[in-house]
Amino acid sequence: MIVVLAGGVGAARFLEGLAAVAPPERIAAVVNTGDDMVLHGLHISPDLDIVTCTLAGVIDTAQGWGIAGDTDECMQWLGRLGAPTWFKLGDRDLALHIYRTARLRDGATLSQVADEMRQALGVPITIVPMSDDPAPTHILTDHGELHFEEYFVRERCQPAVRGVHLHAAGPVSPAPRLLPLLASAEAIIIAPSNPVVSVGPILAIPGVREAIANANAPVVAISPIVGGAAIKGPAVPLMRAAGMEPTALGVAKAYADLIDGIVIDTVDAALAPAIAQLGIRPFVTDTIMRGMPEKMALARAALELAFA
Amino acid sequence: MIVVLAGGVGAARFLEGLAAVAPPERIAAVVNTGDDMVLHGLHISPDLDIVTCTLAGVIDTAQGWGIAGDTDECMQWLGRLGAPTWFKLGDRDLALHIYRTARLRDGATLSQVADEMRQALGVPITIVPMSDDPAPTHILTDHGELHFEEYFVRERCQPAVRGVHLHAAGPVSPAPRLLPLLASAEAIIIAPSNPVVSVGPILAIPGVREAIANANAPVVAISPIVGGAAIKGPAVPLMRAAGMEPTALGVAKAYADLIDGIVIDTVDAALAPAIAQLGIRPFVTDTIMRGMPEKMALARAALELAFA
Repeated sequence: MIVVLAGGVGAARFLEGLAAVAPPERIAAVVNTGDDMVLHGLHISPDLDIVTCTLAGVIDTAQGWGIAGDTDECMQWLGRLGAPTWFKLGDRDLALHIYRTARLRDGATLSQVADEMRQALGVPITIVPMSDDPAPTHILTDHGELHFEEYFVRERCQPAVRGVHLHAAGPVSPAPRLLPLLASAEAIIIAPSNPVVSVGPILAIPGVREAIANANAPVVAISPIVGGAAIKGPAVPLMRAAGMEPTALGVAKAYADLIDGIVIDTVDAALAPAIAQLGIRPFVTDTIMRGMPEKMALARAALELAFA
Repeated sequence: MIVVLAGGVGAARFLEGLAAVAPPERIAAVVNTGDDMVLHGLHISPDLDIVTCTLAGVIDTAQGWGIAGDTDECMQWLGRLGAPTWFKLGDRDLALHIYRTARLRDGATLSQVADEMRQALGVPITIVPMSDDPAPTHILTDHGELHFEEYFVRERCQPAVRGVHLHAAGPVSPAPRLLPLLASAEAIIIAPSNPVVSVGPILAIPGVREAIANANAPVVAISPIVGGAAIKGPAVPLMRAAGMEPTALGVAKAYADLIDGIVIDTVDAALAPAIAQLGIRPFVTDTIMRGMPEKMALARAALELAFA
């Protein structure tokens, strides 16, 4: 299996490309669940849904999240009843949360539910949550400790970040399939996702970082930082708060104990020598995934680097 | 307070008329929750929602249930995920169930939630569920024991009915406001609802039938049976299974220990003498509620009978 450590939008787009250039049955996505939360009594798994719906071809491609053509009747009526409405849930989208919540309450694990959902939506790759246990990511800000989605969506990343609390580092077990997948992987790819709040929680789960370091497979990353800026989301303030330099070199350093190579963007070509000095092979190419050709090209670059 | 024992559609229409001819702040609806069920992990209260949404002016008047102009995006996607779809839940409608379920899980009682919802939707009358405890109505059929909604909606009343099991008769407490409302009522009106599965569960709760019999207030009913047929729903087979004659006289007999009078339809005028012989005052008038004038006239008839 080619095992991809995945956050949300960037990872989902990369996986689309990968599933087009490698046999989907040989691809497994291990997905961050640090953004998961319970809202309106419903278990919401933002990254699992983004990955699953992107690969199912039903994602709202303009937003990168949510289901294409969705409506918000339920949300408007929840607002009428006085429920909080800062986290938008479309009517179609709600079916995912309602289904997941009901199955979890029936005693299914998050791993089982993720697999049922990807099968129901016709996704051919394996999708595994990082853990079946709750492992929320909290952001310590000058407005107090916030759940990641409260910081990201409700507060629009406005509060200054002082630190990040990954509950994944606590008494949390990896999902049952995770360590076996890593141990038997033919390659491990760290998707172009936020190193702090997307990949960070996966690596923070006790035993996971060691399992990757000890795996026989080549490990490569794709930098989500291009020209010192994040392609999407609050990677820069979060990397700074985590003591990382918000550059492709900073990303390479964050994974220095794990990766054999890293794909960086052409605009960051000047960072390649410094990356090479860390003992990490840099691969310089265009990394912005505007459409399917770019997604496939980036997937090929990652595979080329891994299997070189 | 004028206290109305209420099922779904018929009761809701009667309450609309009553709220137009009497001060809404003097009206309390005690609503059957025997139809309540958990589906997709959501707590669904069909009669509470029908009464609340009718009085809020947002009901789908053609169906008598559901919210006007509602869509079914979520339901279609639940079906896509393999969830059962026999019980239609509109997108707007789902907001009621999601809100209720979340509040109940937060520790609120069904009474509290019903009150929050009628306030949020601008309903001026008091709405009280019959109980805060689960008290499902099961129908014993030649296809086994079914929840009422399974019998009514999923099986479309096709299985032959052998009996009715009202869990309300079990260890179920009346809602906190119910007995005080009955004790201090100025009139108690049994709405034109199914005597077996709508009014039956309310009366089956330990202590409720006695509280009505002992109340100082006049007690009157409106027959939901007109010309030997139900205006809506499966009252005829259910009354037969419960050993009742499916006529206005049968309705009067079912409530004989409770009521001082009963409103029956003009087409049933011939039954008036037999009803009078039970010691129950019959009031003969048109009872079909086609529009607001008929709803108001029926409400006036019930009040006239009660306060005569």
